[in-house]
Amino acid sequence: MSERRTVGVGLVGLGTIGTGVAKVIQQNAAVIEQRLGVPLRLVRIADLDLETDRGVDLSGIRFDSDTPGLISDPEVDIVIELVGGYDFARDLILKAIDAGKHVVTANKALLALHGKQIFDAALKRGVDVAFEASVGGGIPILRSLREGFAANRILSLHGIMNGTTNYVLTEMEKTGELFDVVLKRAQDLGYAEADPTFDVDGIDAAHKLTLLAAMAYGAAITFEEIPTEGIRALTPFDFEAADEFGYRIKLLGIAKGHGRDAERIEARVHPTLVSKGSLLANVDGAMNAVAVTGDAVGRTLSYGAGAGEMPTASAVVGDLIELAREVLRESSGRVAPLSYLPEELVPKPIVPLDELYGRAYLRFTMLDRPGVFGHIASVLGENEIGIESVIQKGRGGSFDSVPVLMQTYPSKESALRSALEIIDGLEDVTAPTVHIRVEEDL
Amino acid sequence: MSERRTVGVGLVGLGTIGTGVAKVIQQNAAVIEQRLGVPLRLVRIADLDLETDRGVDLSGIRFDSDTPGLISDPEVDIVIELVGGYDFARDLILKAIDAGKHVVTANKALLALHGKQIFDAALKRGVDVAFEASVGGGIPILRSLREGFAANRILSLHGIMNGTTNYVLTEMEKTGELFDVVLKRAQDLGYAEADPTFDVDGIDAAHKLTLLAAMAYGAAITFEEIPTEGIRALTPFDFEAADEFGYRIKLLGIAKGHGRDAERIEARVHPTLVSKGSLLANVDGAMNAVAVTGDAVGRTLSYGAGAGEMPTASAVVGDLIELAREVLRESSGRVAPLSYLPEELVPKPIVPLDELYGRAYLRFTMLDRPGVFGHIASVLGENEIGIESVIQKGRGGSFDSVPVLMQTYPSKESALRSALEIIDGLEDVTAPTVHIRVEEDL
Repeated sequence: MSERRTVGVGLVGLGTIGTGVAKVIQQNAAVIEQRLGVPLRLVRIADLDLETDRGVDLSGIRFDSDTPGLISDPEVDIVIELVGGYDFARDLILKAIDAGKHVVTANKALLALHGKQIFDAALKRGVDVAFEASVGGGIPILRSLREGFAANRILSLHGIMNGTTNYVLTEMEKTGELFDVVLKRAQDLGYAEADPTFDVDGIDAAHKLTLLAAMAYGAAITFEEIPTEGIRALTPFDFEAADEFGYRIKLLGIAKGHGRDAERIEARVHPTLVSKGSLLANVDGAMNAVAVTGDAVGRTLSYGAGAGEMPTASAVVGDLIELAREVLRESSGRVAPLSYLPEELVPKPIVPLDELYGRAYLRFTMLDRPGVFGHIASVLGENEIGIESVIQKGRGGSFDSVPVLMQTYPSKESALRSALEIIDGLEDVTAPTVHIRVEEDL
Repeated sequence: MSERRTVGVGLVGLGTIGTGVAKVIQQNAAVIEQRLGVPLRLVRIADLDLETDRGVDLSGIRFDSDTPGLISDPEVDIVIELVGGYDFARDLILKAIDAGKHVVTANKALLALHGKQIFDAALKRGVDVAFEASVGGGIPILRSLREGFAANRILSLHGIMNGTTNYVLTEMEKTGELFDVVLKRAQDLGYAEADPTFDVDGIDAAHKLTLLAAMAYGAAITFEEIPTEGIRALTPFDFEAADEFGYRIKLLGIAKGHGRDAERIEARVHPTLVSKGSLLANVDGAMNAVAVTGDAVGRTLSYGAGAGEMPTASAVVGDLIELAREVLRESSGRVAPLSYLPEELVPKPIVPLDELYGRAYLRFTMLDRPGVFGHIASVLGENEIGIESVIQKGRGGSFDSVPVLMQTYPSKESALRSALEIIDGLEDVTAPTVHIRVEEDL
């Protein structure tokens, strides 16, 4: 870093995050230079919308719709992709790599689907692709996995990785309102998209877990392989019962290694009962947190804002600074993007849910008739599912459906599923039983 | 990383942490190589004690007392200093640097005192000194500050950075026992040293805060400048009252920037009342956590084991892997060790405690006579200290000393000190008033 120069940045996509990136680069220019040694200069921005005022000073920055021109601009050393989506984003990233530019992206969906193609191209071309902002917003969890915990075999990873769902869960718990009501409010407040599918069905969390599982276990899995359940089925009953049983409900992405070298891995996304006293249970609203347990380091937790203009921009500009160091040293490939060298990333079987063993929370919906609960209890017993505690709510008119809320003793999920299949076929059981897994030891 | 080779490591000091380092390098050799690309080989170990069985396989490792020989061994690329203390450790680190070896150390006391000399020597010689294990044990907090949050102006930093004191505080709160009783048990259990001064008087935390303040604010301060209070004065009354007021007591290291470019900084170590609902309040036992708030990223928390054989070894070997990447690339100096370039590290004034503004917890010890509390309350009122709530305990025999526990409204510490000086001079006040600061917004 002896000869001083400037590192030039080209930004594609001036939406919320892109605007935050421009702000951070400008507002924190002094402190960034004090750490990096040279100025980080936002040279040009490409976006289709050249009209909207984003409340950021663009003087001295070339701003147009010319993405190819941005990529080929010799003053641009690093290209930031913040357009989202698949085809255009992939194309632009591959072209930037081809032009010898380092790339920063926050696009987890793209990386979960096409990461291999992108990382292979970067390695071949001798440039880096950084993506800290794609998981956990401003939390430097990817750096921690790749470098801070690099000496560890990772035993488990539990993440609250979607701010929208965590906001909805926190509100449902606090207000006792229905999912649809809270979701609508979250949409009105801008915490949830008009189409909330990616968030509330767990797909976004599964995208992120795909990346984390690769980094933790060297597991080349696709996100379609990850058993994924969202939060739409939850009702106020579930939050009340969880509370009485000593838990809170969080949508977790979970990965665990099976076998000494993680020959198989667990990877799953679902609502989960987490002990009230745990740190993870106390991560509220739109905040994110990832708990990583390593064989040497033991338990850790990294907590912060999982989304939003400025926190995400913090991660993007952190990546820019890291890549600027590579630009200055005219080098790349210091750390493998997915922590394991590309040749060590191998497909690993995902442990089937049937093999899981643990406590479960069950919500039965049944007619309020004598003998129905007894019948359910016998089916559970025949399948060796022990009942730890039961709550019955709203016993009212004698032929109405009522919820019965239950916590089981630890049991094998295959046995539980067999039992639930029979129970859900009973005449007096009027809706499919809701089953939420409990994670102990968090 | 195209041509494969081995990176050789020499370890000086085979105590608890050193033994953990040997274990991690051996047990996790496969996964380390899958991430690094080459094997990390523990070539030799130097220690004065060659007899004690540490329960680790040393076959194939040269083990003797020859530290100079270890340093000059051409097979050793990286030297780990784990002897602790000042003179010998500094001498060995400087000699290793001089011999062109990268260095890993966990010695916060040494770095807090002689960091500048060591980092300057390393920069000049073109080698790196890594010290992740020196703060927060296995938590990668230094990496996060240096890289993850590099785009931010840091607004504040609050750390539980000493496992011994956090263990003692947690036990005192849980059992209602006296400090001396709990400390004795901690010593018997190996959680506290025979001489606990560095821990319980806050000195160890101040050493660590010296490093963090440099990394967060570019502030070249010495640890003697940091106002430091330990936990010896705390009694069971304080934990009970804190609980009633909605807080828990933690020994925090706190740093904050004053002014847009942190022209002055707060840096202080003292027992602190932290709101019960905050994540930091729920960090128990020997665990550590550091909350960092940045202008872009917002609030973050990093949590993990702050000490112990394997967590500390996790950080040391993480550093080894990072330095091994530099060995393989024949480079150094990628990131400035204290985050800011050496020339940007400047002395900054520490904001005097008198200028602090906030709530306070006070424990008065006074004779249980009519009018005494009224007198205290008037002195507080004359100094514009508002009383938010009061608890009086153990009113018994009429002339005994009793504690009166109080929470004030936010006020200036200078005013509070003036008031306490008068109050502690009153005839009926029989012991110096204990004053614990409250940190809001955690």
